[in-house]
Amino acid sequence: MKGKFITFEGVDGAGKSTQIKLIADRLTAEGKAVVLTREPGGTGIAERVRNIVLDVGLQLSVRTEALLFMAARSEHIEQIIKPALMAGKVVLCDRFCDSTFVYQGLTQGKTVTELDSLRNLNLQATDGIMPDLTVVLDADPKELLLRRDARGVTDRFENKGLDFQENLRAGFLALAQAEPQRIKVVNALDSVEAVNEQIFTLVKNLLG
Amino acid sequence: MKGKFITFEGVDGAGKSTQIKLIADRLTAEGKAVVLTREPGGTGIAERVRNIVLDVGLQLSVRTEALLFMAARSEHIEQIIKPALMAGKVVLCDRFCDSTFVYQGLTQGKTVTELDSLRNLNLQATDGIMPDLTVVLDADPKELLLRRDARGVTDRFENKGLDFQENLRAGFLALAQAEPQRIKVVNALDSVEAVNEQIFTLVKNLLG
Repeated sequence: MKGKFITFEGVDGAGKSTQIKLIADRLTAEGKAVVLTREPGGTGIAERVRNIVLDVGLQLSVRTEALLFMAARSEHIEQIIKPALMAGKVVLCDRFCDSTFVYQGLTQGKTVTELDSLRNLNLQATDGIMPDLTVVLDADPKELLLRRDARGVTDRFENKGLDFQENLRAGFLALAQAEPQRIKVVNALDSVEAVNEQIFTLVKNLLG
Repeated sequence: MKGKFITFEGVDGAGKSTQIKLIADRLTAEGKAVVLTREPGGTGIAERVRNIVLDVGLQLSVRTEALLFMAARSEHIEQIIKPALMAGKVVLCDRFCDSTFVYQGLTQGKTVTELDSLRNLNLQATDGIMPDLTVVLDADPKELLLRRDARGVTDRFENKGLDFQENLRAGFLALAQAEPQRIKVVNALDSVEAVNEQIFTLVKNLLG
């Protein structure tokens, strides 16, 4: 693969989409070919899968949910990510495998050492493709909540509950500790500009 | 698991549904608790998955198709097969993992020794549950086609083409050769009664 694959992870409200957009703009300004995508999404089948997963009436098991997300990811890899990487592009993806490891693994009672079956499943779905760099935008969910309250924002961040967001945060940090080469943690509570500088430095180091 | 899990496989038109029904009737007459089910199917999500797979506009990759079927199987196992087996029932299922190994494996250029990733994927989806007995209803597709022509039947059997049916047949026979303990081949061109006797003997041997 001539291109580079960079994923962004973290709790809701940490600023992932803002930062991805800024990084895409800076790389584009430097003349790099950039593909911006997100999960679950990117292809027609992903929308269909999301509809199934969101249909609460179905009450899917965690295992089924993971397999459905993997099917969507398989198509996402095949149709969008792999072709872009083969063409030498920089792919920036909002959420990817680490969200699976956290949402369908670590927050479901598994530890980092018990993720083997999810990791193998993921490698099958991605045909072995893993991110070259993963940026975790890290923040104390309580702090993010206070900021959002101050702005009068009410969204799914709050609906999921603070305890769940704290579990998500702990999950991403545990993954970063286990794979420090690939996964880099950035403090999302810094200013947008400061966070962006840190991420851009990581990206430049990767692109060389 | 106190119950027994029996699956039926083979080319289209070999008489699977007729034989499953007969076996279910005989076991029920003997006082056994029987659950009759089929793949892809059995749960709400399976119908949704089937709709995605049948939507030719999506043109799914084989890998994505396999993952979608596995998601449906995962739910089928969780909601129907596992509870029935735990309750000591006999589960008769029209198509199961061997159809996956043939349709998404052997007819896609893989050999029996190259099915490991599909086998692992299947074990993840089924939480390790495999059939106790698999009956392959075997017949030369050309013979089946002649019989059907004589009855004026035109269906998907013919639409798929004879070459494809012959590949399917070869696939099921190769699986049976690799796992002779679990997979038993029955000549589907015998009379309905003779075929049923052979299958019933295999079933009785399993149930003891």
